[in-house]
Amino acid sequence: MMLLDPTPETALTPRAHVVIIGGGFGGLACAQALGGSDIDVILIDRRNHNLFQPLLYQVATAALSPADISEPIRRTLGRYRNIRVMLAEVTGVDTGARAVVLEGGRRVEYEQLVIATGSEYNYFGNDDWRAHAPGLKSIHEARLIRQRLLIAFEKAELSTDRLEQRALLTTVIIGGGPTGVEMAGAVNELGRYMIERDFRTLRREDFRVVLAEGGPRLLGGFPENLSDYAARYLTDAGVELRLGEMVKHIASDHVIIGDERIDTGCVIWGAGVKASPVAQWLGVEPGSGNRVPVNPDLSVPGLPGVHVIGDAALLNDEDGNPLPGLAQVAKQQGTYLGRALRRKLEHNESPGPFQFHNRGNTAVIGRNAAVFDFGRWQMKGRLAWLLWAIVHVWLLINFEKRLLVTLQWISRYITRQRGARVIDEGAPGLPPTTSRSET
Amino acid sequence: MMLLDPTPETALTPRAHVVIIGGGFGGLACAQALGGSDIDVILIDRRNHNLFQPLLYQVATAALSPADISEPIRRTLGRYRNIRVMLAEVTGVDTGARAVVLEGGRRVEYEQLVIATGSEYNYFGNDDWRAHAPGLKSIHEARLIRQRLLIAFEKAELSTDRLEQRALLTTVIIGGGPTGVEMAGAVNELGRYMIERDFRTLRREDFRVVLAEGGPRLLGGFPENLSDYAARYLTDAGVELRLGEMVKHIASDHVIIGDERIDTGCVIWGAGVKASPVAQWLGVEPGSGNRVPVNPDLSVPGLPGVHVIGDAALLNDEDGNPLPGLAQVAKQQGTYLGRALRRKLEHNESPGPFQFHNRGNTAVIGRNAAVFDFGRWQMKGRLAWLLWAIVHVWLLINFEKRLLVTLQWISRYITRQRGARVIDEGAPGLPPTTSRSET
Repeated sequence: MMLLDPTPETALTPRAHVVIIGGGFGGLACAQALGGSDIDVILIDRRNHNLFQPLLYQVATAALSPADISEPIRRTLGRYRNIRVMLAEVTGVDTGARAVVLEGGRRVEYEQLVIATGSEYNYFGNDDWRAHAPGLKSIHEARLIRQRLLIAFEKAELSTDRLEQRALLTTVIIGGGPTGVEMAGAVNELGRYMIERDFRTLRREDFRVVLAEGGPRLLGGFPENLSDYAARYLTDAGVELRLGEMVKHIASDHVIIGDERIDTGCVIWGAGVKASPVAQWLGVEPGSGNRVPVNPDLSVPGLPGVHVIGDAALLNDEDGNPLPGLAQVAKQQGTYLGRALRRKLEHNESPGPFQFHNRGNTAVIGRNAAVFDFGRWQMKGRLAWLLWAIVHVWLLINFEKRLLVTLQWISRYITRQRGARVIDEGAPGLPPTTSRSET
Repeated sequence: MMLLDPTPETALTPRAHVVIIGGGFGGLACAQALGGSDIDVILIDRRNHNLFQPLLYQVATAALSPADISEPIRRTLGRYRNIRVMLAEVTGVDTGARAVVLEGGRRVEYEQLVIATGSEYNYFGNDDWRAHAPGLKSIHEARLIRQRLLIAFEKAELSTDRLEQRALLTTVIIGGGPTGVEMAGAVNELGRYMIERDFRTLRREDFRVVLAEGGPRLLGGFPENLSDYAARYLTDAGVELRLGEMVKHIASDHVIIGDERIDTGCVIWGAGVKASPVAQWLGVEPGSGNRVPVNPDLSVPGLPGVHVIGDAALLNDEDGNPLPGLAQVAKQQGTYLGRALRRKLEHNESPGPFQFHNRGNTAVIGRNAAVFDFGRWQMKGRLAWLLWAIVHVWLLINFEKRLLVTLQWISRYITRQRGARVIDEGAPGLPPTTSRSET
């Protein structure tokens, strides 16, 4: 965001030992590994908060509030005197002068640079689809999706046209990966609950959730038996699957999948991701998914002092397969690089190569249903779901959030109620509110 | 909001026995009193949620999340089969045809009408001030204020100009009533904490909170000794008071109070309220504050079947003073009217006059400090603050919210941390977000 006056070419601060771009899992882990040392670190993010993305779908489906899964970066790093946090938008990197260029032209000079800017949704060249089919990467988008889901129900309630009602009660989710599967399960539960309990004039049979995946199966990154389990579970729950069909068109009120036109009140995008434009900043040739190929120590070939981690980096594992864009990869790379830079700057040691330790890949499918893939072995069903819940609560940033989320989950589980079904006035898709109040 | 197709003059539903406009304290209490009967009731609100306004200032100051203090109206009334909830914007009332007119021209016909649309902030003819100085009536506004407070700090952090920093760290609050006093106390605590803990490059002495009141004292509705206590407490806490000074001008970056120009990063309006335009809908002569004069049974003289309650109604107490625009007044009037209508429609009985029972008027000033006025006697200090907290938790709509708010308050109290310090991307004052993510 535009926080700086455009006074180009002026350095904002003395040259920092380490500048980190991005306060996500990777950037934050890197900063924490450098915390408490004499190395002065600047972390730049265009958001003031770290977002726990694995639970973002629960904000979009009104189970949790944004604040439950986001934490001010300043609060997380506040205890480290050697780390400074900047809320600013990065527009490029001057690798020659070793400076990060911020919106407005101001510069932040570095000795060592860590780029952890993650990935964005890939609309495969149809960027006009984005307006109709938001992805699930930010609180803003999660709120937008929640908004559309809830408004569609309200509109349907007021409609006297059966076809319009059907369309409004139809949600289409594009992409059968973890995000798509999690959204499909959650939207399905939310919708069926609301019709049951709060919208009794609506007909149950008019409510539809369609999950479309271009590939042959759901959860393509998981073993087949887990994909089959997910497909069975969702089908039994009433979700309609469209496998092996490509999305041809997305408009505000309908999508075309294969040859089928589906009228809908809400479209959600979870299909493909591509790395943020780091390769363009650095002027290097991007690899698959626009990711920046890096050395085993996460440095960028030919650019001294520049490192890329997380979704933005392209690194192969022992078997020559690129490491997936997962939180645990970003986190492990951040910690590795933070320690490596510390050893380099403090004792001038150079580290061994980064090694990824697979902690297990998971997706939650619905009430009492999740899948875990630990490589050698798998888990599914209620036990996996419990483990998923425990792991995700444990991964939350502090005790208060763990407690709050746990309590809300227990309450959801018992009552099936959703706590955060708030339509924000003045939110996207609504006219600006006057300060008139109904209370 | 615009939910209906503009097909004028068509009635949306069969004529309802009772139509309630507004799902605030008054409207909801009225609906609940009618719940479970054979009287068919339609409650119309342009929001999907009931908002617990007494705690809205805590959302604006990042202590609570919107969902903690708002509840879907459908959820609250879902158990009553005889009540239908409509999310729609009312544009007028056709008292002759006994119909409520919705945006788009659709109509909802009534036998008995209850108008509980509350009040809006009164900018005393300077409606251009609203953009610079939002009030505190909706979640949208609370989020906007939170946004401006947090962004101002981030901007100050990045600024290299001392004067600009000073301006950005100055918050001006207009209006010394409960809202203004509560905001001043909360902003002061939030700001001092953030400088202490998270923005160490900023100077404590640059942080200012200015509370301006046109009248001679704070909390004009309270006894003088409580006003003095509030003034002393806030002054000791570092808040600057401007009493007896009128606001002459409000711009985006400064305000003029009396002859003093104050450069500021955030202006908050809590000065005056006026009733929503009910008198105009009904074509009656409004009383003070644009309120509609009503009979002792809350009906409107000369308009059969029309009732007004809460902030929108003007009714005098035994001593001939108009009842204040308080939640407890609206709630008591709603319950009274719901029961009265029930008796009227079920047994054709007509009720006695409404009588207000003062449950005590309160305002919280800061950590360990609140005031209570029970008419005959008063309370202030730590005990009043504890009572305030207990009463407000108890007034929350259900057990889950009570538990969540209690836990967050305990955590705030111990850690002084604020839980909801989230700057929403794409929120007012920020550029729209792309779906690029830092995680």
